[in-house]
Amino acid sequence: MKLLEEKIKTCGRVLPGGVLKVDGFLNHQIDVDLIMSLGREFFDLFRDEGINKILTVEASGISIAFAAAQFFHVPVVFAKKGENKNVGKDVYTGECFSFTKGKPYEMSVSKAYLGKEDSVLIIDDFLANGAAVKCLMHILDQAGASLVGVGIAIEKGFQPGGSELRAAGVRVESLARIRSMDDEGGIEFFD
Amino acid sequence: MKLLEEKIKTCGRVLPGGVLKVDGFLNHQIDVDLIMSLGREFFDLFRDEGINKILTVEASGISIAFAAAQFFHVPVVFAKKGENKNVGKDVYTGECFSFTKGKPYEMSVSKAYLGKEDSVLIIDDFLANGAAVKCLMHILDQAGASLVGVGIAIEKGFQPGGSELRAAGVRVESLARIRSMDDEGGIEFFD
Repeated sequence: MKLLEEKIKTCGRVLPGGVLKVDGFLNHQIDVDLIMSLGREFFDLFRDEGINKILTVEASGISIAFAAAQFFHVPVVFAKKGENKNVGKDVYTGECFSFTKGKPYEMSVSKAYLGKEDSVLIIDDFLANGAAVKCLMHILDQAGASLVGVGIAIEKGFQPGGSELRAAGVRVESLARIRSMDDEGGIEFFD
Repeated sequence: MKLLEEKIKTCGRVLPGGVLKVDGFLNHQIDVDLIMSLGREFFDLFRDEGINKILTVEASGISIAFAAAQFFHVPVVFAKKGENKNVGKDVYTGECFSFTKGKPYEMSVSKAYLGKEDSVLIIDDFLANGAAVKCLMHILDQAGASLVGVGIAIEKGFQPGGSELRAAGVRVESLARIRSMDDEGGIEFFD
């Protein structure tokens, strides 16, 4: 998606260690019009798939999932991270390693909001090693829900998550797929 | 706002200890059409105030802030909780006590996304003791930004946060303001 690629090139920053900072428009400050365009794009990609729920994980995935859900007219469920007194005990859980924070964390979704009647689109802001998406898929398995596909804003295509998911037969649609980043700030995208 | 009050009465659950669970439509599963209506209502209330940014805090505030921002056509900034490697060191911070989690936590906003040129609407899902809103106001003070007002989905009007803020001259608009809740599930609203 050219619009997102251009935004990454003009407003993103590459930091040492393969970190791409997009907090000016995606995951700290949110460019609402841009995020709505991403939501619209996910709708165009998955509109005929019978999706009745969108699953994401707090916090950065929420705005993108919410934008897409406005076009699909379906609810969003966001997985909670860490222990949550307020979620209760009747939950599906998965453990996920955060490469950003350098430690594992737990994700949970209340059993009330996912079940075998659900056809689910997973949406998240980033896909790199795929840890978060795999954890959400594990939660869908526990619920007996069907995974329709995965919509990602920015895929670090030089990390293995996307390739592994596609090799496993998952439909992964990334709106910007980065081929390489260098420490001078250069970013190349896959066509 | 009748629509929200009705939703709370039909889908909310009162738990012992003054906990109101609204995770079926607000802060775990999200009813997108309802949240868009809340956003529209905040726009109607504050449309003439020259707001150029909406500030909230992850995670439950994000969808409501994002909904409102679509009408205001302004960016959303969400404060991050806890220590964030990815936010960097150039941040405004505040410490806040979470009554839900029973412990204090830090909130931070990058200095890049708030400044003295900003006229800010704070939006959050709940107002009870007012800890989170006061922490966001402390962050606005550090930034030299102007607070226009506070938009809250559900105010627990029997807790002191809202009254304290109004007494301090802050314009607080709560779309559903609860007068009382009892352990049998009864909920009364202020008119």
